[in-house]
Formats: sequence, structure tokens, C-alpha cells
Amino acid sequence: MKRTLIKETPNLIGETVTLQGWVNTKRDHGKITFIDLRDRTGLIQIIGSGELLGSLKPEDVISLDGIIKSRPEKLINQSLETGKVEVEAKELKVISHAAEMPFDMGKETLDVELPTLLDYRSLTLRHPKVQAIFKVQAVVIDAFRKALNEKDFIEFQAPSIISAVPEGGAEVFKVKYFDHEAYLSQSPQLYKSLLVTAFERVFSVNQIFRAEPSVTTRHLTEATSLDAEFGFIDSWEEVLEMQEYVVRYIFEQVSKKCQKELALFNATIPLMSQKIPVLRLREAQAIIFKRTGRDCRSEKDLAPEDEREICAWAKEEKDSDLVYVSHFLTKKKPFYCYPDPADPDYAFSVDLLCRGVEWSSGGQRLNDYQKILQNVHEWGLSEEGIALYLQAFKFGAPQLGGFALGAERITMHILGLKNVREASMFPRDMERIDVRLSSAE
Amino acid sequence: MKRTLIKETPNLIGETVTLQGWVNTKRDHGKITFIDLRDRTGLIQIIGSGELLGSLKPEDVISLDGIIKSRPEKLINQSLETGKVEVEAKELKVISHAAEMPFDMGKETLDVELPTLLDYRSLTLRHPKVQAIFKVQAVVIDAFRKALNEKDFIEFQAPSIISAVPEGGAEVFKVKYFDHEAYLSQSPQLYKSLLVTAFERVFSVNQIFRAEPSVTTRHLTEATSLDAEFGFIDSWEEVLEMQEYVVRYIFEQVSKKCQKELALFNATIPLMSQKIPVLRLREAQAIIFKRTGRDCRSEKDLAPEDEREICAWAKEEKDSDLVYVSHFLTKKKPFYCYPDPADPDYAFSVDLLCRGVEWSSGGQRLNDYQKILQNVHEWGLSEEGIALYLQAFKFGAPQLGGFALGAERITMHILGLKNVREASMFPRDMERIDVRLSSAE
Repeated sequence: MKRTLIKETPNLIGETVTLQGWVNTKRDHGKITFIDLRDRTGLIQIIGSGELLGSLKPEDVISLDGIIKSRPEKLINQSLETGKVEVEAKELKVISHAAEMPFDMGKETLDVELPTLLDYRSLTLRHPKVQAIFKVQAVVIDAFRKALNEKDFIEFQAPSIISAVPEGGAEVFKVKYFDHEAYLSQSPQLYKSLLVTAFERVFSVNQIFRAEPSVTTRHLTEATSLDAEFGFIDSWEEVLEMQEYVVRYIFEQVSKKCQKELALFNATIPLMSQKIPVLRLREAQAIIFKRTGRDCRSEKDLAPEDEREICAWAKEEKDSDLVYVSHFLTKKKPFYCYPDPADPDYAFSVDLLCRGVEWSSGGQRLNDYQKILQNVHEWGLSEEGIALYLQAFKFGAPQLGGFALGAERITMHILGLKNVREASMFPRDMERIDVRLSSAE
Repeated sequence: MKRTLIKETPNLIGETVTLQGWVNTKRDHGKITFIDLRDRTGLIQIIGSGELLGSLKPEDVISLDGIIKSRPEKLINQSLETGKVEVEAKELKVISHAAEMPFDMGKETLDVELPTLLDYRSLTLRHPKVQAIFKVQAVVIDAFRKALNEKDFIEFQAPSIISAVPEGGAEVFKVKYFDHEAYLSQSPQLYKSLLVTAFERVFSVNQIFRAEPSVTTRHLTEATSLDAEFGFIDSWEEVLEMQEYVVRYIFEQVSKKCQKELALFNATIPLMSQKIPVLRLREAQAIIFKRTGRDCRSEKDLAPEDEREICAWAKEEKDSDLVYVSHFLTKKKPFYCYPDPADPDYAFSVDLLCRGVEWSSGGQRLNDYQKILQNVHEWGLSEEGIALYLQAFKFGAPQLGGFALGAERITMHILGLKNVREASMFPRDMERIDVRLSSAE
């Protein structure tokens, strides 16, 4: 008999069907056994004799024939999408037996610490609330692509292996590349910019690598970057507008497709006002000083507490969970940043903050070859390491800009997760690549 | 004035517009200068005084105001989408000057050898025929995702850094990972399989890495893999059917969206019959013997000439550019392959061949934990290196299978390219990472 998906059952009352999935939970009531069966579409209650179902254990994979029945009014389970029906088990085939659970997988929220969550990643990824994280993430990533496709951007595959680290190599991973030394890309920045000189509008979804030597709640050594870059911009503000459009698109898609997942986390989509407020760094610092008395007005960047404060300001004053901070110090930014002609000490660079943390950075880039070359020298970089990048601008390039969003970070902050590792299926850090590295030594 | 895209011009006859783009070609006729202007949407002829346009050079980036005019009937250029109109230039602003071209970029087909094509990658990626390759590739990749999304597969981001190389390490890149040794993933195979035990149906578009120590026309050290895997299959043939559906979907999308690009290469979508023919390895070898007299009937795999021959057979006998070859020798396949119970020396493994070469490999995988464990030992592998994979099957797993397609290889063979490097924006091999490695030493 052809498999029926669990979500289809409410429309098949009275029919005999074959369901296939995992035993999510099991409850024995004397001669009667209840199980909740789980497949990719949901959960359903199965009822059967202890003889038939009694020996099943959590996470056993089964194929089960049964009759779909309406539940009596008072037994309807409102919290389950299939709560109006149950299946009376007739025949059971065990596809695969599961070993004994190391912890209770049947609770609505997994009650394990982060190290256990990751030590048992193959198991914990089955939990509906854990799965919800990655359903949201898949929607975020797909929405990013769709938003840009609609604006005529073309997707490219950013390379991971690079031959040089133009912007300095403290946090870069080295690769033994035949007889050479190569590196893992920290960002597709130079590739996406050079591609603008060919395709005008490009985006990529790609892995980036940072040899972050500390274990924090917000850094991964391998992460998924959502990168966009485009040419013939009229002003640096056009970059802000495009990013705002993309973020709004992502929120709309998540809101439309992930209501169930959001509800599991009691999460709400960040609030977007008509237009994301924009503050220059110095304006933001003045606001912080005024609100808190803390004087960060001559600092070169925002500290984490500053980011939280300026987000609080945006929420209170502008009804927005999102806020742009622009005009960081040119000399503190990469060589390709575009200085504001009105005050070249500050650049057309911009961070997007949301709910207290940085979500993305972007801005306008230099497109004048001579100016780029001059900066390469001023910044003390090697022309050789960025030969292809320089080549692009040498042969004519439009004014351009772009931005990059972190997929794990967006997922984390939409759902209110405490640690970015929860938003990565296979998080990598100093101490872990799937297994704990210390124990693998 | 707001920018008008070149493709919009035929509908704006008589209007004054601002066009922005690159000087594709320039022809001086005394006091009159013609240029073909290029933007991301196409080409258009600009006509103006030598005084205004005469100093322009190929690849200069310009902003130009002009009036769109109909061309006289006899001057219509049928080979150009905007061939019925031209623009009379009124005002010119040069956004960016280009250096002198190292070769003629204005020809319909770039007349350069592969090393030059890649040495000048930032420039050659601007050529319309080179761009067509990557437009086709973007459609292939997007179609892959769409096809699987429609079948309820969820996208995941496969990690690139791995802690161990379970299947042997001859062609693996090593990464210095803090105080540890790590590796670059050759395939997301184990990840996608373990994820089936959680999500049932998964796919990913990801970079894979092979330390291929030779320079061939069909291998890259970094490539884009299109991976799919799913559970609760009824038989190994279900894997073939899913892959056939995906490939058909890709072809339909390319056919629908890339007519212009296909025409540039005089290319046709591979022919698909009602159903892709399936031959077992031994059947294929018998056919080859019968057709050619070459006896490969006891070989453990198909040689390149065998692949070409069996594709010729499929074309002649089955009217199909595609053919499956299944039932490779179990012992020659990875530990997770599912042996055919009717003859366990041969596995439910399958290659998809198209136009003479392998496009993908796939098959059914073992899902019984004890059997997997037994094979891990028989194959001489370390349990430690695949701990997360084993964990997945220890806790209950459905019958499963899947396949992987190479994005560059598909692009190459749809368009009839001679070298897979042409189908990678930034191809990496022993001798090159963007720049030639020997010169960087």
C-alpha cells in the first residue's frame, strides 16, 4: 500500500492507510498502547493493542497499517494538527530498531545542555523544535535568493579556497594545496565586487571561514554568508534600500511559511517601520551619551553594549527593531570602502543592527582604479594577492555597493536562540568539528 | 534621469533616456561614431558625433543620454534584440575609463586560449558568450532546488571542514585547524544520509574539494555539488526515478529560460526518452562487447571509452542521451552501499551517463546499523571518524538513497564545452587559484 503522510490523515477518516515514521513517544495503558508517530509532515496518535505495539521504543522506525478514526469531541488534541483523528493500528512492520535514548526525546522542548545537544547531533536534529530552527533557516536563505532574483541579480558560486589573504591573516585557516599554501575564504567580498564589473548584479550563498580563536555565543569557524553586490548605484543609500527590501522580503516569507515554527519558540518577526532609521556613527554615539551618560563619542566603533543601546533607542523612538549605523572611520575599514566626499575621514559603510546585535555590514565600494591602487598601497597590502580584483577595475567598473548577512545569525535572532551554535546543524568552533576535538587528539 | 535598461529601449521609441553600461565595440566612420553599448540586459547601437563619442574605448563605463529612434527597415539588425532601434547620443558622462584591451573583446566568440581566458578572468567574464555559461549554470542550480522543494525536500548547508576522512585520504586537502588537523570535504554524502534520519528528505548545493593531482579537462579541485538524499524509499529504483524527475526539471527550466544562451553555443538540451534506460554493469559490458568486439566484461568499472560507447548505444537504440548503469561491484563501492540481496556481490549503486560521460552517481544506502558497523570493519575504516553518521543509524533509520550531480559538469555538457574550467567562474586546479601558482611561488 502506498505511504500516506501524516498531514494527510485528517482528510482520510475511515480509510485504511500505511503510515511510516519514527516512534516519537509511547504510553502504555495496560492492554492498550498509545504512540505518537512522527514523519516529516507532523505527528499523529496511534492506538493499538499492547501485543502489537507494546514492544516499540522511542525512535524505532516503523511502517504501520491502520484505520483513521475521528476522535470523540472531548479527546480532540488542539495542540496537534492531526488532533481530531487517531489511527487504530492493524499491522506493524519495524523497519529499524533504535538504541535506548540517552535522554527524553519526547518532551516539547529538549531538556539538554548545549554540549549534549551537539554530542548527539544526529539524534537531536530529529526533535520537532530543533527541526523548526532549520526550517526557518531554509526559508530565510531561499527568500534571500528569491528577493534578489526578482531584482535581476544572478547567483554565483563563491570559491572557498583562495591563494592569498589580502586583508591580513590573523583569523584565516591555512590549507595545504599541493606544494603551495592556500587559505579558506573569510568572505566572498572581492569576488562579488569584481563580478559586478561583469554581471552588474550578483549574489551568493556560501560558506565562510574564520579561525576565531575563542569560544563565544555568536561566532562559528564556518558559517553561511548571504552576499549581494550591485553596480550603477546612484548613491550609497541605494545599498541601504536594497538591503531593506531583502530583509523585508525575508521577514514576509518567514512570516508566511513558518507560523508553526515561530509559535514553538514564542517568537515574533522583528518589527520593521516604514523605513529603517539611519544614524551615523557619531550620531549614534551622541544618542548613547545622552541616554546613558556613557561617553563613547570618540570611539572608533560601537561596543556590544552600544549596539544594544542604539537598538533600544530605535525601538522606543522609531518603532523599529532594525537600525542602520553608517559612516564608520575610513581608516578602520577595508581598502575598498568609499570615503564620504563631504568628510573623507568617514566612509559610506553601514552596519545593520537588529535586536541588539549586528546583522550585516555593507556599503559603497571604490570603483576608480587609481584610487583603489592608492589605497592598496596606503593600507600596506600586496597587489599580487588581489590581482584579479585589480584587473576588474582596471578595465572599467561602475559605481557599486553591497552587503552580507549571516544566515545563522538571522535565524538565531528571529527565534531568540541564546547561542549561534543552535542555528547551525553542524557547528564548528575551536573545540568541536562534529565531535569534541580534545577527545579526538 | 532614471536609468533605462537596454532591453526596454524597443518600447520607448522617440523618448529621451539615460543608458548606462560598457562600451562593447566602437566603429569610427569619419564624423560619425557608432558604439554598441552593453548592460546586463543586452546590447544596443549608439550613434553620435565623433566629437562626443570618438574618444571612447572598449569597456569604458559610461552614462549616456540620447533619443531612441527606429532604424530604417534595411538597417534592422536581426541578430540583436534591440536591432530595430538605435540611440542618438546627446550627452555623455564617462563613469570609468578602461585600460587598453589585451585582446579583442568585441568578437562574437572570444578568440583566446584557455590560459588567457583564465588569466584575464575578470575581463573575460564580461563577454556575452562567457556570461551565457553562467546564466545557464544559475538556472541549472536553481532548477535543482526548485524540483526538490516541490517534492518536500529541505535545504541544508553542508559543512566544508571535516575532522576525519573515513574513506581514505589520497585526494583530500588538509587544513590547519588551530592545534588540530582537519580536512576539506570531498562530498556531503555522510551528512546528507544522516540528515535523512532526521528530516527524511534533504538537499544541498555546496562546494566539494578534491586534491586531484593531475590536470585534466574534467576535474576541478573545487566544484559545486548538487546533492539529494531521501528516506522511506520502496526500492532502489525510486532513487532513479527521483533523479530522472530532477534532471527533466532542470532541462525544462534551461529550455524555457536559456534559449538565447543555448543558441550562442548552438547547443541542444540532451534528449530524454519517456524513461531513462537502465543497464546493469554486466549488461552494459556485454553490449559493448557485442557492438565493438572489445571485451571489458570482467572489468570492475566502465572506462571512458566504455561510457562513450554505452551512450552511443542509448542514443541509437533508446533515443536517449541519458542512460543509467547500475549494479557496480559492492566491494569497489563505499561501505554504505546497499548490496542487491539477489546477488550481494553487486550493489544498488547507479551512475547516470549523458553524452559520453558520467554526470552523477547515487544509489540505495544501508540503513541497518549492525550491517553498517560490520562494513565499517570490513572496509577497514575507523568508527571514530564517522561517529555522527553511526549515531544516526544507531537510533533508527529508514531505508534511504540519493544522488549527486556536478553543476559544472552539467553546464559543460549542456553547452558542449571542451573543458570543465570554462564552466567554473574561478576554476581551481593544481596550477591555478585565480592566478597561476607557479608564478606566485
